[in-house]
Amino acid sequence: MNKQPETAIIRRITPSLDNARYAIKRAIGGEIVVEADIFKEGHDEVTAVLKWRPAGAAAWRETPMKPLTNDRWTGSLRVTAPGAWEFTIEAWGDVFFSWQHELEKKFAAGLRDLQSEILEGAGFVEAAAARAGKPDAAALKKFAAGLRKAAAEEAHATAHDPVLCALMTVYADRSLATSAEPHPVWVDRERATFAAWYEFFPRSAEGKPDSGSKFRDCLGRIDDAKAMGFDVIYFPPIHPIGTTNRKGRNNSLRCEPGEPGVPYAIGNNKQGVNGGGHKDVAPELGTLEDFDWLVGEVRARGLEIALDFAINCSPDHPYVKAHPEWFFKRPDGTIKYAENPPKKYEDVYPLNFHNDDWRGLWDELRDVILFWCGHGVRIFRVDNPHTKPVSFWEWVIAEVTAKFPDTVFLSEAFTRPKMMQELAKAGFNQSYTYFTWRNSKAELAEYLTELTQSDLKEFFRANFFTNTPDILPEFLQKGGRPAFLIRAVLATMACPVYGIYSGFELCENSPIPGREEYADSEKYQFKGRDWNAPGNIKEFLTRLNTIRRQNRALQEYSNLRIQTAENDNLLCFSKATASLDNLILVIVTVDPWQPQTAFVHVPLAEFGIGENDAYVAEDLLTGERFTWRGNRNFVALNPHTRPAHVFRIRRWLDREDGQDIFA
Amino acid sequence: MNKQPETAIIRRITPSLDNARYAIKRAIGGEIVVEADIFKEGHDEVTAVLKWRPAGAAAWRETPMKPLTNDRWTGSLRVTAPGAWEFTIEAWGDVFFSWQHELEKKFAAGLRDLQSEILEGAGFVEAAAARAGKPDAAALKKFAAGLRKAAAEEAHATAHDPVLCALMTVYADRSLATSAEPHPVWVDRERATFAAWYEFFPRSAEGKPDSGSKFRDCLGRIDDAKAMGFDVIYFPPIHPIGTTNRKGRNNSLRCEPGEPGVPYAIGNNKQGVNGGGHKDVAPELGTLEDFDWLVGEVRARGLEIALDFAINCSPDHPYVKAHPEWFFKRPDGTIKYAENPPKKYEDVYPLNFHNDDWRGLWDELRDVILFWCGHGVRIFRVDNPHTKPVSFWEWVIAEVTAKFPDTVFLSEAFTRPKMMQELAKAGFNQSYTYFTWRNSKAELAEYLTELTQSDLKEFFRANFFTNTPDILPEFLQKGGRPAFLIRAVLATMACPVYGIYSGFELCENSPIPGREEYADSEKYQFKGRDWNAPGNIKEFLTRLNTIRRQNRALQEYSNLRIQTAENDNLLCFSKATASLDNLILVIVTVDPWQPQTAFVHVPLAEFGIGENDAYVAEDLLTGERFTWRGNRNFVALNPHTRPAHVFRIRRWLDREDGQDIFA
Repeated sequence: MNKQPETAIIRRITPSLDNARYAIKRAIGGEIVVEADIFKEGHDEVTAVLKWRPAGAAAWRETPMKPLTNDRWTGSLRVTAPGAWEFTIEAWGDVFFSWQHELEKKFAAGLRDLQSEILEGAGFVEAAAARAGKPDAAALKKFAAGLRKAAAEEAHATAHDPVLCALMTVYADRSLATSAEPHPVWVDRERATFAAWYEFFPRSAEGKPDSGSKFRDCLGRIDDAKAMGFDVIYFPPIHPIGTTNRKGRNNSLRCEPGEPGVPYAIGNNKQGVNGGGHKDVAPELGTLEDFDWLVGEVRARGLEIALDFAINCSPDHPYVKAHPEWFFKRPDGTIKYAENPPKKYEDVYPLNFHNDDWRGLWDELRDVILFWCGHGVRIFRVDNPHTKPVSFWEWVIAEVTAKFPDTVFLSEAFTRPKMMQELAKAGFNQSYTYFTWRNSKAELAEYLTELTQSDLKEFFRANFFTNTPDILPEFLQKGGRPAFLIRAVLATMACPVYGIYSGFELCENSPIPGREEYADSEKYQFKGRDWNAPGNIKEFLTRLNTIRRQNRALQEYSNLRIQTAENDNLLCFSKATASLDNLILVIVTVDPWQPQTAFVHVPLAEFGIGENDAYVAEDLLTGERFTWRGNRNFVALNPHTRPAHVFRIRRWLDREDGQDIFA
Repeated sequence: MNKQPETAIIRRITPSLDNARYAIKRAIGGEIVVEADIFKEGHDEVTAVLKWRPAGAAAWRETPMKPLTNDRWTGSLRVTAPGAWEFTIEAWGDVFFSWQHELEKKFAAGLRDLQSEILEGAGFVEAAAARAGKPDAAALKKFAAGLRKAAAEEAHATAHDPVLCALMTVYADRSLATSAEPHPVWVDRERATFAAWYEFFPRSAEGKPDSGSKFRDCLGRIDDAKAMGFDVIYFPPIHPIGTTNRKGRNNSLRCEPGEPGVPYAIGNNKQGVNGGGHKDVAPELGTLEDFDWLVGEVRARGLEIALDFAINCSPDHPYVKAHPEWFFKRPDGTIKYAENPPKKYEDVYPLNFHNDDWRGLWDELRDVILFWCGHGVRIFRVDNPHTKPVSFWEWVIAEVTAKFPDTVFLSEAFTRPKMMQELAKAGFNQSYTYFTWRNSKAELAEYLTELTQSDLKEFFRANFFTNTPDILPEFLQKGGRPAFLIRAVLATMACPVYGIYSGFELCENSPIPGREEYADSEKYQFKGRDWNAPGNIKEFLTRLNTIRRQNRALQEYSNLRIQTAENDNLLCFSKATASLDNLILVIVTVDPWQPQTAFVHVPLAEFGIGENDAYVAEDLLTGERFTWRGNRNFVALNPHTRPAHVFRIRRWLDREDGQDIFA
């Protein structure tokens, strides 16, 4: 122990994930309110600063922290650009301000024989001058010289001179300062924190019942999605599909000739120009050049393509021959297929992440992601990450973002809560959630509060999918078109990032009886569709997406607050910006069958509205404007015609020419 | 990254202080119930074990952990000897039990073509045999050979064979196990967790009004303390006392000739055989040999001496000349005395723990403690530790206990809560508390609960002092003898470690008017006393100490539970052993003036007593026995004659010959 050990104590820093092992997340411009226990022995004046910087930057920015009560301190910073950041706290006993404080006490007690004290203070100021740059050093030297000549009254005044105090703050003696360990922060780029995802199978782009579309046929579907307001186009796997044990319609073990196979059975070493594996595209969709062209077309429209990263290998995957050691083996030396006993998945070979050449496997999987980054893809929806080691994800996400910092990863881990959370901590920017199975008002209120108000908000960012190729929720099956309207309102209004799997806009809801799966799922077959079929809700979705874009409160994550609606079938929540310039109040029915009415409570105090002030509630879905006063107001919803109010609340600003002006 | 990164995830371990930076504390035989989030990717069966050992021991002991809900696991251990221990958690995906689980599912589904599976299992068993010692290896090989020949039914039975399962548990494949970081534990020796301290100034041993006693005169006082049941004799500083600016009676700046000075003004370079500083004794008390003799006498009586470690230097301390660089200096080069503006303490020079030769100072202070350890002292009450760096205490306690592991440190930090707690984390075995200023029932109930039921119980162990040379609480000043009885009951019954400063047993309570300080304090003067003065409460203290020794529940710390008494002036609390073989219920008045009555609620369920069972409440203060039934019972207390009931609750055991037998 030859270095001075810590002098100030800094403990219990929040926010902190597993003691700074993992990064908290923020959107660009996001605030981090940091708190910590900070104290020191003795009676010195403690100074503490909050410091932050882009990770690896040479210089820290810093801001003073302020004491709350009981040795708890707070400070706040804002992150201004995407990528890796870090913050820390530095604290020290400040000799100058301790001196000032003691001088003040002596002066107040009437002592005037303070020559020794004054010279001591001059010494502190001179030491600061030695640390300062040129003009400040001169100013400090002048203060010190003044002190050396000063009588008690003058010295007392100088000690409190605001210029001197400011300079002594800047050039404080930090030689014995204690620094906390750096706390990592990940700042997501804008589309990682505010986006509307539209998932479709490229082979289904044109809705042909007997044959597949190609990349070059996808623009119609993409333009339609763009017109509805979506901005991320997400494709299930686009790679060659295995033929060995290929599945047929409705997951049949028998595949008829001409059936297209499941895109998740990845790899066909007889196809493709690039080995036929994860770095290749299925020839039936086109070529890599076609894909590159499509990426460019999508980008030109201001949209972005998300690919599926599914670590599944069909028996025909090139890895099987090139790297048999990457797979699990039976005692007879053959490769094991996937099982969930007694079910067998003979078309999928799982990979052994801990095989002797694990490093080779991990590197290759990283290279797959980097390959698609090289083709302009920056969003990856990751299939079943919870069946691979968390440490792999932590490593691979760090490797990829080191080269392509704007890469976004969505975790498709439908599993137990702690694993879902750990994956988010390990680096996934977004996560699928239990939203799909939260239908009652009580369930929704509890879950939305947990997501946006608990510690989860620091690192677990929801992407609310209404449906997926694997999940046709019972609520949509039974509730019909009104249920689709309801779930659309919930997904779009409650969560800045959400998605639909195509067909949702058409209210497709034919299940395999008794299951939450689609009948005749396009995972296994070509699927005929009229993308403008009667009864579709495309206009409603368009309206919702427009509202999201026009109202900043809906683009923030943790500003959701459940509000009171006096009816167990009406969910009411608010979203407001910190400056209160955008106030949204959503009231949505969760009953897809009956009309419902209720008094709802407008959170006047949270919205900065006086108890007796008039305000306007403008329904952004219909354009209607109501002038209200007081917090309790009556609403009537009908799931068929008006499943929700999305009110923008406009505060009274002024009265001009006998007219009230509202924000 | 060439080593396999963590495979299992182990997070949120409890108990854990600042992420295992500091040791939790336990008494000998104490239990540590450890919990953690433990999980793993995929569907493997997870196994987790709790491991512990004396710090630095070669081998770990271990016990299986069990899952609770939601990936939370628990396990429990007991520490069996004093000193430094550590625990950790190891977890892994268990190939054999995962195999067993999958085989079971296939078997249950009616599958019998399981040859490949059975051979795989045999392989796992053979691998375990290779890890096992001789007899177990043979047994495992036999199981493996049996499996290799087995049909499905037989293999299924073998997979569940309890002997095989036990062996496969012992010889599990842990090559991919994850270990959590070690968590330190400090186990206190018995007298650190159960003791009654008696503080007296050796110079006051005989109670002479005009002259001081010597070490060789102390046995009378010590025998009296022993007779009352005390077992730690604590002396304020015994070192040479400075003469420069020596304080007189009642803290007077003028010291008359012959006045003895304040023992906390340590150091007189004109006295002593050993420099006259912290490694010396005041000649007026005797010699180092006299002190050694006294240590031996005290030890022979089964008691122990505690010394005061007060880092105070008088202007006459040898350090001032030998190490002027250790002190703070004025601009004119003279050494600064202590101040609390506008108060000046010209008889004390504070040390600068961060001076350029800080390492030399720290080493010297450590050597002071080691010096007294070398003279048989193992308990140090540390004066004002919160005015020295916490890092110094963490370092010096580790240095001392490395050589003398049975050394006990008591922190006298009357300051803000977080500093008090940090000192306890840094290594202090015991701490002074706010007990002295908690007088009402509500205050006491809240504070006792915080100390014994919150996280504090893991590291902050209270030593309840009723009074100190510096503190004569207002409650004792105003409440007179009944107040002394009340505070004695509270200190002895609520806290396994407590202390009194001598004079308490005589109900001394003359204050400096308007202050919580003793008039004519013996800190500054000789003090005449009759140690058997009328009105003393020595018999009462003796009874309380006897009760403590005879009832194990009172020797435990965190078993205190506040119970209901239907009167705001009666505090009721229970202490019970885990095995319920010692059940104590204390009811004490906090009103030193008026009699109080109430119904109190006996915690029948906590005590394992049926709602309709008869039980005996034996008052250990008086010997009275009451037979009660039901939880609500009437008590009447009188602060003058019966300030408390200390009931030992005796459960009904049996009925024999028409007589009820109680525990």
